[in-house]
Amino acid sequence: MLADVQKALDAFGEREINRVFFVGCGGSSSIMYASKYVMDRESTSLASDLYSSNEFIHRNPRQLGPESLVILCSHYGKTPETVEAASFAREKGALTVSLTFDPDAPLAKASEYVIIYEDGKQGGTFANEAPAIMLELVLGLLSSKEGNTKLDELLPSLENLRGIIDGEKAKSLAAAKAFAEAYQDDKVIYTMGSGANYGIAYWFSICLLMEMQWIHSHALHAGEYFHGPFEILDEQVPVIQLVGLDETRPLEERSLEFTQRYGKRIIVIDAKEFDLEGVAPSLRGYLAPLVMQAVLRQYAEELATARNHPLTTRRYMWKVAY
Amino acid sequence: MLADVQKALDAFGEREINRVFFVGCGGSSSIMYASKYVMDRESTSLASDLYSSNEFIHRNPRQLGPESLVILCSHYGKTPETVEAASFAREKGALTVSLTFDPDAPLAKASEYVIIYEDGKQGGTFANEAPAIMLELVLGLLSSKEGNTKLDELLPSLENLRGIIDGEKAKSLAAAKAFAEAYQDDKVIYTMGSGANYGIAYWFSICLLMEMQWIHSHALHAGEYFHGPFEILDEQVPVIQLVGLDETRPLEERSLEFTQRYGKRIIVIDAKEFDLEGVAPSLRGYLAPLVMQAVLRQYAEELATARNHPLTTRRYMWKVAY
Repeated sequence: MLADVQKALDAFGEREINRVFFVGCGGSSSIMYASKYVMDRESTSLASDLYSSNEFIHRNPRQLGPESLVILCSHYGKTPETVEAASFAREKGALTVSLTFDPDAPLAKASEYVIIYEDGKQGGTFANEAPAIMLELVLGLLSSKEGNTKLDELLPSLENLRGIIDGEKAKSLAAAKAFAEAYQDDKVIYTMGSGANYGIAYWFSICLLMEMQWIHSHALHAGEYFHGPFEILDEQVPVIQLVGLDETRPLEERSLEFTQRYGKRIIVIDAKEFDLEGVAPSLRGYLAPLVMQAVLRQYAEELATARNHPLTTRRYMWKVAY
Repeated sequence: MLADVQKALDAFGEREINRVFFVGCGGSSSIMYASKYVMDRESTSLASDLYSSNEFIHRNPRQLGPESLVILCSHYGKTPETVEAASFAREKGALTVSLTFDPDAPLAKASEYVIIYEDGKQGGTFANEAPAIMLELVLGLLSSKEGNTKLDELLPSLENLRGIIDGEKAKSLAAAKAFAEAYQDDKVIYTMGSGANYGIAYWFSICLLMEMQWIHSHALHAGEYFHGPFEILDEQVPVIQLVGLDETRPLEERSLEFTQRYGKRIIVIDAKEFDLEGVAPSLRGYLAPLVMQAVLRQYAEELATARNHPLTTRRYMWKVAY
């Protein structure tokens, strides 16, 4: 565990906390959906909410105050709304803990506690990457406030994650290339998931497909699917179905059964196929999305190559005023 | 106020409640987003969460228990996941209050308190329709538990809502017809909103466009927009921009400015144009989505006519097993 994470956990022990807010934008927000899921499943006493940074500021939740913990994330630490959210929360007396890749970024300056994470490009332990740190913070908080013991299982599991991810990426490379070949001309690609996975479906839709590939998308919730969205399905519509290992797996299995029955272009990423031997059984549902994200990223990389549309292509982001 | 609503409010007074869960599917869930918004803005002590019914059951939030209030909604009262969610919550000792149109429906039997709402087809007060009742329940709860006084302003405002809605529908009919004419051949139409409006954007995307018109859609969050989805915008992409009166209006104004700068097919529904004279100023942000929903419904009706695809057309819903 990074020393920065330990410092934040020490602060949790010293402060009264009755409520947690997960605050970020886009990809940085998407990794927090699993955190909210863990809070709901595990916490016996703490309330939690997840908001996009600007919604958080303007919604201005009435219960935000000195007994709130606000966890924020921004990769470059420059996202203006997230920096402002940190200042806003701090002015309200909340304990702020921010994750960023850049120690000199505005977000690092705006927050009481800062955790500088790694982006994995140098290899090394996955425990030092943002999605893993989010779980350390959440289970660390629950350890401190409620005696939850899952942090003890989390730490060794995280140490095994790099190897697991590398293995699953190697195993799925051919499938990723086949996906890219088959779907490179599609204008609309849906993703679907539930529970701890929903954030990954959301991330793939809005960041990888819409932002980086200019492909129309929507992250369908596997439960809501049957109350409207499923009517869009026909034999031409592509759906990337995530199937995880958390308690909502039956929702994803049900939507998968349906999409496979009436659709013809269904891509399945099932965490049951992952070799999670090195992850504590009680944590597999919470950690599967981290592996899924890496596998899906490779799908996007192959798609970008096939379409000759690099993932770095932008028309507005960082280029025009907004 | 309906006698059934008063009975539920009386029960709120008699029970210990520390947490509220808003539970439903599709359209019935979408009207609860404004309820969650009101809870966040107004409540000084109660936690609240909103879940699709099956996610609620399988996620099985650890804090669901005797001090929980679970508010559920299903129009026909037969949605299996919502009926099961009511039984599930009741077994956990939670106070269950369900809204349905049908007093003999399974949901009515499964719930401790039942509110039979009207669907407005007979005219009459809008106060007896589900979105209005949701606000009565939320502000009634906050009156009972925290001394919030907005319920007193809500009741006369609701009495004026039918007239307001009829007026706004008449005012926007020509725009609805023009929308239908211009967008009838589009394959993808986005909606966008934030705060109290987001549920309406979600409803229009998943129920009206995807379910009832088989048009691809996604409810964009006006804040998240700039962290991924905006890259999809070009001069061909249609976006229905909702602009409300709640505290997150600046987010919607910002996304509107951007979509109008780079897009050419932007449809704007701005609550500032509504004549809300009869609504208490302190409640206009919370009630604007109810008017917006009626106005948008008329847009969908005109679209259905122009496309010769009735809103009742289905290929799977109520027709096949799922």
